[in-house]
Amino acid sequence: MPKIVNHEERREEVVAAARRIILRNGIEAATTRAIAKEAGYSNGVLTHYFADKDEILLSALEASHRRIADRLREKLSGRTGLAALRELLLDNVPLDAERAGETGLEVGFWGRSLTSPALLEVQRREAAELRYVVTSLLRSAAEAGEIRTDEDPEDVAERLLALVDGLSVHRLLYPANVTADRLERLLLREIDHLRDG
Amino acid sequence: MPKIVNHEERREEVVAAARRIILRNGIEAATTRAIAKEAGYSNGVLTHYFADKDEILLSALEASHRRIADRLREKLSGRTGLAALRELLLDNVPLDAERAGETGLEVGFWGRSLTSPALLEVQRREAAELRYVVTSLLRSAAEAGEIRTDEDPEDVAERLLALVDGLSVHRLLYPANVTADRLERLLLREIDHLRDG
Repeated sequence: MPKIVNHEERREEVVAAARRIILRNGIEAATTRAIAKEAGYSNGVLTHYFADKDEILLSALEASHRRIADRLREKLSGRTGLAALRELLLDNVPLDAERAGETGLEVGFWGRSLTSPALLEVQRREAAELRYVVTSLLRSAAEAGEIRTDEDPEDVAERLLALVDGLSVHRLLYPANVTADRLERLLLREIDHLRDG
Repeated sequence: MPKIVNHEERREEVVAAARRIILRNGIEAATTRAIAKEAGYSNGVLTHYFADKDEILLSALEASHRRIADRLREKLSGRTGLAALRELLLDNVPLDAERAGETGLEVGFWGRSLTSPALLEVQRREAAELRYVVTSLLRSAAEAGEIRTDEDPEDVAERLLALVDGLSVHRLLYPANVTADRLERLLLREIDHLRDG
């Protein structure tokens, strides 16, 4: 009896292999050859499932974002306004090994997105979603009287998300300066200040 | 008469070629072969001046930082405290094409630094210098009574520099959302808030 190949599973194996390489050795180490080797397939199998390397990297980026979204949905369940915003922002910074890996992958994609329209489009779409969620939570927190600021919620959202990305990359590059405790304290201070207007 | 080769000039040409490639096509496009071609030299000439590709990239990073430091020294001349801080932070965000190129180069190096101890060391040393300057300006602004905050100057410096890096990468990735005007407004608001304590 011929072996039945589960195509979806194979695709996922290749994407997972690419992710492991990026987390371990950085995005520029994720060559087609290296990904094939890590997944235990020939280059030929890869070209059967993916048009080119960028398509594999794109899938790895989307898989990482899906993972984050699933985890977040669980954390936000039953929370609203400022409490939900707090969970969301804390979940987006590298306070443990899993999220340090995610940040490293994200930073690698930032650089590459600047010269790849396909990657940039995915980055933009998913960043816009995150911005929308943060802005919505800020509006509902304001309606509930939890925060007192006359600043435009979209400006507050951009400021918070820029701070999240800046602190995240500093945590990875300068861990002795930006310890996990310090990162958490600086971020929570920013959220607390929203209460004071 | 044999042609006299100016070794320092040749090194600089190679570094400038690497910089142009990174600005144009991203850091992963800066292979030894591509750098040699861009500089108009053979691979052999490159290996005469640099131990490996990382040494060329490192020199490009340091050259970029020197350029920024020179420009900044001019801008800060005659300014102290909050006025100097304002110039310094505004100079570190991509408000024009030159600084957009510098930010793109920097973001490419962030990703690569995470897997290259030599690059990481340069990043850390130069980030520590910048942090020291920002902290010193905050202290002198506080002594001059320009800012009223009981927050630790090192915490304020980290927050400002994280915001600078986050807004900078957002300006490059999401230019329609983070326009130059908006970036400047959000950053200046942060500096103005230091006055209010």
